[in-house]
Amino acid sequence: MSDANTNIQQLKDLVAAFVEERRWSQFHSPKNLSMSIAIEAAELMELFQWDDGTGNADIPRERVREELADVVIYCLSLANATGIDLSKAIQDKVVANAQKYPVDRYLGRYK
Amino acid sequence: MSDANTNIQQLKDLVAAFVEERRWSQFHSPKNLSMSIAIEAAELMELFQWDDGTGNADIPRERVREELADVVIYCLSLANATGIDLSKAIQDKVVANAQKYPVDRYLGRYK
Amino acid sequence: MSDANTNIQQLKDLVAAFVEERRWSQFHSPKNLSMSIAIEAAELMELFQWDDGTGNADIPRERVREELADVVIYCLSLANATGIDLSKAIQDKVVANAQKYPVDRYLGRYK
Amino acid sequence: MSDANTNIQQLKDLVAAFVEERRWSQFHSPKNLSMSIAIEAAELMELFQWDDGTGNADIPRERVREELADVVIYCLSLANATGIDLSKAIQDKVVANAQKYPVDRYLGRYK
Repeated sequence: MSDANTNIQQLKDLVAAFVEERRWSQFHSPKNLSMSIAIEAAELMELFQWDDGTGNADIPRERVREELADVVIYCLSLANATGIDLSKAIQDKVVANAQKYPVDRYLGRYK
Repeated sequence: MSDANTNIQQLKDLVAAFVEERRWSQFHSPKNLSMSIAIEAAELMELFQWDDGTGNADIPRERVREELADVVIYCLSLANATGIDLSKAIQDKVVANAQKYPVDRYLGRYK
Repeated sequence: MSDANTNIQQLKDLVAAFVEERRWSQFHSPKNLSMSIAIEAAELMELFQWDDGTGNADIPRERVREELADVVIYCLSLANATGIDLSKAIQDKVVANAQKYPVDRYLGRYK
Repeated sequence: MSDANTNIQQLKDLVAAFVEERRWSQFHSPKNLSMSIAIEAAELMELFQWDDGTGNADIPRERVREELADVVIYCLSLANATGIDLSKAIQDKVVANAQKYPVDRYLGRYK
């Protein structure tokens, strides 16, 4: 699997199979999954807590990879549980953001 | 775009183009992106704050779709910024989780 | 120390002394402290992740106590770093909330 | 009210009265309150999202004050709901941290 040859549905199926094999969907209410996403996001953020931008913080790349995967795995689970097409949702949001932040006004600035 | 015919690289490219057009990569240190992921995860979670599992909370599906998209958009940005192949990272993590939580011991239970 | 005989300034001083003894204020920018608060909040929330309201989740009270303390310790540090009088800020916010959520309209309901 | 003359119990009582007047304790399960703390912590953190340490981010002090108050208000509610003496919990945690991070080894360094 690599990003160039893996579609979102394959990742959704991979995650769904893991959950189903363990009969874990009973725990996976949307509310609980949204909590899981936030918890994993905090664990990811913790890796960068003392990073001062100089590169001295010595953040282990492998840990970033694992924690980022955890966040996205729970996002895929929530998309599975709620029947959301993630690709379409992302495309729609990027279009909406492009209208909200027109290039000529937001070039190099956030506000 | 739909999950069945969109690969991760296409979504990564979509997000990268949006960032580059606005010259926003200067703000997108891994540390800042990890904060963005956590902030968007909290906004997603907020939708389920008062959900009691009875379906009475009346959560707007469109809002869930938008906030979930926001979380994944920042995850794709962090993967772009750090050169992480997300599909491979997810696959590796699911394999690791499968070893950590063997089916025979964790069937229907978390601990 | 107990809640009935401890004022906020004493807790602020306790936390400030701990930080100063270790010369840690150099790491305690408001930005980093806000991240610490969010990270500790997620650790606290994790204890309740699988709580279904039936009391079966068997949440260790001692762990709740520790994680809640961690959140408030970082809140006190941020108040120290920014010169915020927390008691006054809380009082002002409760007054503002009382105006936003008048009793006659919000009795037993959030919206 | 000011930090020098307000004890924790007074703040707990202030928050408890607000909740009781609105009959909101029915929504305030420890799980929900832990979510509220995390959500408010993210809103606080969002204020510092683009702060680069140069002071250019122009963060409105009043907003920091409000969001920090929100976090602590929910912490006080959780302490109320679970019967935790917060002052004692904080004191115990600072003592535990002092043993975990002895001054001679952690002077000016986190690890």
